Amino acid sequence: MSTWGEYFRVTTYGESHCRSVGCIVDGCPPGMALTEEDIQPQMTRRRPGQSALTTPRNEKDRVEIQSGTEFGVTLGTPIAMVVRNEDHRPKDYGGSTMDLYPRPSHADFTYLEKYGVKASSGGGRSSARETIGRVAAGAVADKYLRLVHNVEVVAFVSSVGNEHLFPPTPEHPTPSTNAEFLKLIESIDRKTVDDFAPVRCPNKEASERMTKIIETFRDKKDSIGGTVTCVIRNVPVGLGEPCFDKLEAKLAHAMLSIPATKGFEIGSGFAGCEIPGSVHNDPFIVAPDQDTNPGIRTGKRLTTKTNNSGGIQGGISNGASIYFRVAFKPPATIGQAQTTTSYEFEEGVLEAKGRHDPCVVPRAVPIVEAMSALVIIDALMAQNARETAKRLLPPPL
Amino acid sequence: MSTWGEYFRVTTYGESHCRSVGCIVDGCPPGMALTEEDIQPQMTRRRPGQSALTTPRNEKDRVEIQSGTEFGVTLGTPIAMVVRNEDHRPKDYGGSTMDLYPRPSHADFTYLEKYGVKASSGGGRSSARETIGRVAAGAVADKYLRLVHNVEVVAFVSSVGNEHLFPPTPEHPTPSTNAEFLKLIESIDRKTVDDFAPVRCPNKEASERMTKIIETFRDKKDSIGGTVTCVIRNVPVGLGEPCFDKLEAKLAHAMLSIPATKGFEIGSGFAGCEIPGSVHNDPFIVAPDQDTNPGIRTGKRLTTKTNNSGGIQGGISNGASIYFRVAFKPPATIGQAQTTTSYEFEEGVLEAKGRHDPCVVPRAVPIVEAMSALVIIDALMAQNARETAKRLLPPPL
Amino acid sequence: MSTWGEYFRVTTYGESHCRSVGCIVDGCPPGMALTEEDIQPQMTRRRPGQSALTTPRNEKDRVEIQSGTEFGVTLGTPIAMVVRNEDHRPKDYGGSTMDLYPRPSHADFTYLEKYGVKASSGGGRSSARETIGRVAAGAVADKYLRLVHNVEVVAFVSSVGNEHLFPPTPEHPTPSTNAEFLKLIESIDRKTVDDFAPVRCPNKEASERMTKIIETFRDKKDSIGGTVTCVIRNVPVGLGEPCFDKLEAKLAHAMLSIPATKGFEIGSGFAGCEIPGSVHNDPFIVAPDQDTNPGIRTGKRLTTKTNNSGGIQGGISNGASIYFRVAFKPPATIGQAQTTTSYEFEEGVLEAKGRHDPCVVPRAVPIVEAMSALVIIDALMAQNARETAKRLLPPPL
Amino acid sequence: MSTWGEYFRVTTYGESHCRSVGCIVDGCPPGMALTEEDIQPQMTRRRPGQSALTTPRNEKDRVEIQSGTEFGVTLGTPIAMVVRNEDHRPKDYGGSTMDLYPRPSHADFTYLEKYGVKASSGGGRSSARETIGRVAAGAVADKYLRLVHNVEVVAFVSSVGNEHLFPPTPEHPTPSTNAEFLKLIESIDRKTVDDFAPVRCPNKEASERMTKIIETFRDKKDSIGGTVTCVIRNVPVGLGEPCFDKLEAKLAHAMLSIPATKGFEIGSGFAGCEIPGSVHNDPFIVAPDQDTNPGIRTGKRLTTKTNNSGGIQGGISNGASIYFRVAFKPPATIGQAQTTTSYEFEEGVLEAKGRHDPCVVPRAVPIVEAMSALVIIDALMAQNARETAKRLLPPPL
Repeated sequence: MSTWGEYFRVTTYGESHCRSVGCIVDGCPPGMALTEEDIQPQMTRRRPGQSALTTPRNEKDRVEIQSGTEFGVTLGTPIAMVVRNEDHRPKDYGGSTMDLYPRPSHADFTYLEKYGVKASSGGGRSSARETIGRVAAGAVADKYLRLVHNVEVVAFVSSVGNEHLFPPTPEHPTPSTNAEFLKLIESIDRKTVDDFAPVRCPNKEASERMTKIIETFRDKKDSIGGTVTCVIRNVPVGLGEPCFDKLEAKLAHAMLSIPATKGFEIGSGFAGCEIPGSVHNDPFIVAPDQDTNPGIRTGKRLTTKTNNSGGIQGGISNGASIYFRVAFKPPATIGQAQTTTSYEFEEGVLEAKGRHDPCVVPRAVPIVEAMSALVIIDALMAQNARETAKRLLPPPL
Repeated sequence: MSTWGEYFRVTTYGESHCRSVGCIVDGCPPGMALTEEDIQPQMTRRRPGQSALTTPRNEKDRVEIQSGTEFGVTLGTPIAMVVRNEDHRPKDYGGSTMDLYPRPSHADFTYLEKYGVKASSGGGRSSARETIGRVAAGAVADKYLRLVHNVEVVAFVSSVGNEHLFPPTPEHPTPSTNAEFLKLIESIDRKTVDDFAPVRCPNKEASERMTKIIETFRDKKDSIGGTVTCVIRNVPVGLGEPCFDKLEAKLAHAMLSIPATKGFEIGSGFAGCEIPGSVHNDPFIVAPDQDTNPGIRTGKRLTTKTNNSGGIQGGISNGASIYFRVAFKPPATIGQAQTTTSYEFEEGVLEAKGRHDPCVVPRAVPIVEAMSALVIIDALMAQNARETAKRLLPPPL
Repeated sequence: MSTWGEYFRVTTYGESHCRSVGCIVDGCPPGMALTEEDIQPQMTRRRPGQSALTTPRNEKDRVEIQSGTEFGVTLGTPIAMVVRNEDHRPKDYGGSTMDLYPRPSHADFTYLEKYGVKASSGGGRSSARETIGRVAAGAVADKYLRLVHNVEVVAFVSSVGNEHLFPPTPEHPTPSTNAEFLKLIESIDRKTVDDFAPVRCPNKEASERMTKIIETFRDKKDSIGGTVTCVIRNVPVGLGEPCFDKLEAKLAHAMLSIPATKGFEIGSGFAGCEIPGSVHNDPFIVAPDQDTNPGIRTGKRLTTKTNNSGGIQGGISNGASIYFRVAFKPPATIGQAQTTTSYEFEEGVLEAKGRHDPCVVPRAVPIVEAMSALVIIDALMAQNARETAKRLLPPPL
Repeated sequence: MSTWGEYFRVTTYGESHCRSVGCIVDGCPPGMALTEEDIQPQMTRRRPGQSALTTPRNEKDRVEIQSGTEFGVTLGTPIAMVVRNEDHRPKDYGGSTMDLYPRPSHADFTYLEKYGVKASSGGGRSSARETIGRVAAGAVADKYLRLVHNVEVVAFVSSVGNEHLFPPTPEHPTPSTNAEFLKLIESIDRKTVDDFAPVRCPNKEASERMTKIIETFRDKKDSIGGTVTCVIRNVPVGLGEPCFDKLEAKLAHAMLSIPATKGFEIGSGFAGCEIPGSVHNDPFIVAPDQDTNPGIRTGKRLTTKTNNSGGIQGGISNGASIYFRVAFKPPATIGQAQTTTSYEFEEGVLEAKGRHDPCVVPRAVPIVEAMSALVIIDALMAQNARETAKRLLPPPL
């Protein structure tokens, strides 16, 4: 369904070719300052047409709050947000061939099979435009988390094609053991990421190499994939619900629900399987004085010396930075001619008209951030419910 | 929470040191033959103590159906299943040091932080014993899927440490383009997988190399990770719910909810990001005559020539085999001495007593299968609801 | 929360004094003809200002479909619907006294206590305007049910104050044993109900007596309650989910979620408690030939001779007409002076400004119908999921 | 489905003729003292065979906690509870006729229609035995609410047949305006209710008259209905979630999910519709000093002078006592001969064998209490989540 979250619940709607897209956020805490100004920046970061590297359709994507606030303060009631589809141009994708052929690796075929209705937007809700509602809702969650727990959610591009920000090495099959990587994720912020536009990989050289890859594929009317790494800092200890709703499981669900994703790994990830337990285990140390987690608990506390776990143990946040990586496949819609088969079982050649993103990872950055914030706030409110209930209990004798 | 699924809903319970573990399955279709004999085999495959490679605690794990069937047929009412904890030995883990120290990379610390109660089982529900309820429930789902749609769910070990069944090569960075891999996943069955016990990697040489790795780590009182690959064949077209409940997103959620998992990738996965779209796209072809999908739809139909998508496009199954890979970290509990810090903030050395699994992937195989079956049956019943509702509608003109 | 339903899921938003009110309908079957013309009639029936008996605020309430349809056919994707708040006049309610005093028996006090934010709309989501989203969503459900199962949902006013359409008598403490009542509920339709505007009690004399009561209370700046009876005909057998989601339990939940409701009774209801079981039991008979239920099952079948059960037994629909009654209290906002206490703990006198509904039951009719349709379609889709899953099973030997 | 609640979630299982019945409670706050001794009393109050008035089947109903506690303290993990079916006697109900005929007004017919499987327990989960899991779970919730908020949940029988504890009078059409009733609900406790066993109507005369009615119906092999009134005192202000999950809507849902219920009314209820708004409205007053609500808020506060609202306004608790009434129909299974029709469409006569409850209301008392506690604790934890989230926010300017 189109609903995410139990406590901070988001319901999105909208295809590419209808009046508007948007969402309803239900369960946002009351009493928080909130206007469109808090939401628009992430909407704008998500917007296509920001550079020659991304699709030039000029979507304006102005978000408009419909309900749930008064005088710029949340009421605790559902917050509806709407973005009009001003520039939908239903015929642009079309032309004769695209009506005849389901696009290879696109959702055209499966949507038709599932719903039995052929929509002009083909894959219907599989469109990237669907993510607008997510980003709007995520911006609300993000603001709350920042205001109350100083939570910082920052995503950046970590690879394009075979060009990696931290390529695997014999010493560091996974960046989780690499001090340089750990330093980066403790300090990176969104502004710095955007300084490396249009690729959003926060390293000058890597960024330039990635730009070249994207340009090459764009010029060949081909496409290429990449990965986005995301860090969530200052997450309170204790978030995540055993056993099916482990925090990393919810993150994986959230990330794999983003269009075009193919994989998720947390902490040491896949490469961590190749490291001995004696090295992989994160021993406990007393947290340094200056390392004040502004979350629920304060005072003297344990932390881990290393962070191969990626901030989550047993499905529950341990106070260390949560970081993970998400794989995005090469976009399915390409201008190159593809031999495929029509709905009428005729073999033929399909060439997508119009201009298409050769690589989605730069634009995926705010979407990954939005979904991260939605996962964390939901887990936080679940833990609020439990923690408060527990705190009020008398000691059991 | 401890509930999985909306339509075929499983709720599990139980720690290592309580009377029993088990589950309630709510929403199982009525009229299906079902006895303990259908469930026990997967329980037994999950059981520790099957070989020198796994932990020798002799758990008998006999499942007992409490309700929901009469004369060996499901009633449509909740099916409760119970497995007694006969051999829980609450002191075995303990000894002085394990009470004083949270085990590094284990759930001891986070459970205490989250719940504020120190349980003798340490990580409480993070124990591998928690997975018994999943496997019991999964066996029920698995039977239904097999009976009605001939769905086959088969998992096997694809790597241990740095030893891979299909190591990445320049030609095949991902096995998704490797004909040998594709052939394997179209034919592999559980019996064959078990023939390669205790490692469950269906290749003699790879299996032997993996056995050696595990033995080495066992002898060093260390541990090592690995990956499990799972294929789901004959999945009906059209399963998966946009936009947050894409089929791969539910699979990712399910897999990352299994203890000790660190990553998930579907189809071409992470390596697929490095392949051009023009190669990665799966063109459509007319399905060969003999390729009869016994699912919901029959007759002349489209299928894909390649399967980099891993059987899912736009979040919806396309009728091709679904396959994915899950990363399991090296087990956290090791016999080797580890320098860490106690709950009382004292640095010290922890050596786990008892014998522990040096590598969990062989035992993870039936758990991965169980969670796969639970994901598919839930998506199937969701689609049943929609498909039936649609089929009864008059044409819209 | 503001979400109703699991399969056909409605999320509503909006207060009296924001940009718009509306809803998202997720899970509507694809392929159904649907335009604003299908929805507007019930919106208009819900609208205030239809007669001198109801509040004269002139809300136009034009519904606009945002998404989920193309060329007038549902896509299976979320259907967002929006109604602008053209005439919200935030100051009309206010004036000095209404800002100082929580209105007695209104939601002003509890909303402030719950959310800690004082909204200009006072009770926020408790406003009758909140029901617009319900009515819009209900109209979609209603169309599906009518098209596919010929389900007919008709509500009417059965009492105003102490004036009843079927007053309790010694012979018929409950109308469930009264042949005249049973005949009415088998034949009544919405057009007939509206012929008895503005009261919507389908009996000339009773209607006139009720009108007088309402006029009297209006003139005294007072208010009065009443009851709405609703019948749902042609409901397929087998809807309702044991044990917590019995069909009558969902109906009760739905009805008591409508603002100003105080009670719900199904079939023989409260008075049925006073009838011997030997009389109250509904014996089975073979359904007369002409009594063709156009639902899921056809052919020779059992039905009940009487219908004290109100069409539901053991929480599951039995194919007979479902009927129930809902109690609406006298509206809390009255023009008469009331002695009460301010937010600042000062006793004083409150007189509501503006004009207010002296009795809500006539306008409640389409709201009761909408919630009924939402309950039935959700139960139907749940049963579709199960029924289809069962039908495909081989016989258990 | 068989799940209740989102935060404090209960899943029940079990029919009359299977190994056991029971439940899993997920989400119970950790750190609460809990043993079987806390649960058994309500189980015993629910048990049949307590007097000559109720069915003499001797069920022992000993509850056994399976998980979720250690050393008598809750761990925060799922609490499974099991009661064995020691005395199920599957043939007792049967005999030839009961296999041939669906019992009138029982769930035999609808269960068969819904599930297509004829169970020896006939109505399957519609059996009163299903309520054991509810009562066990309710006892856990009840303990928490009492310990932390001093919440008191007390139900009692308010009518049997046409014999009422507070019969409607011209002055008091509803007891909500009757000082004697209000005094009773502010002071009644479970012990006092049980002093009036077996009827559980806390008034000597009324109790005797009710006993006679039940005896009469028992002797005639007939049955009779009745009502149960329940009060919940000391509920914190602010519980209940707009707009679909109003607190009274959840209570109505919970009550109508109990077998044999036909109606629900809160506060002034149905009769309250006949009272002018000017009388019905509950004006605010400053709460008397001694009236300390031990809930979330303390200090000077508003309360209402009257309580026609029944403690809930706009769907949200206002701090006053919540009270409501539930209608239970005459039990369907009676010894008297009934003319009805068999599954094979043959008219015939059915006489139920064995001994059956002539009136369920005395035994319904602990079930109503259990469901009340489950509603309140779920709403409380929902509000905990929101309230805590709000409290941590900085002021919005």
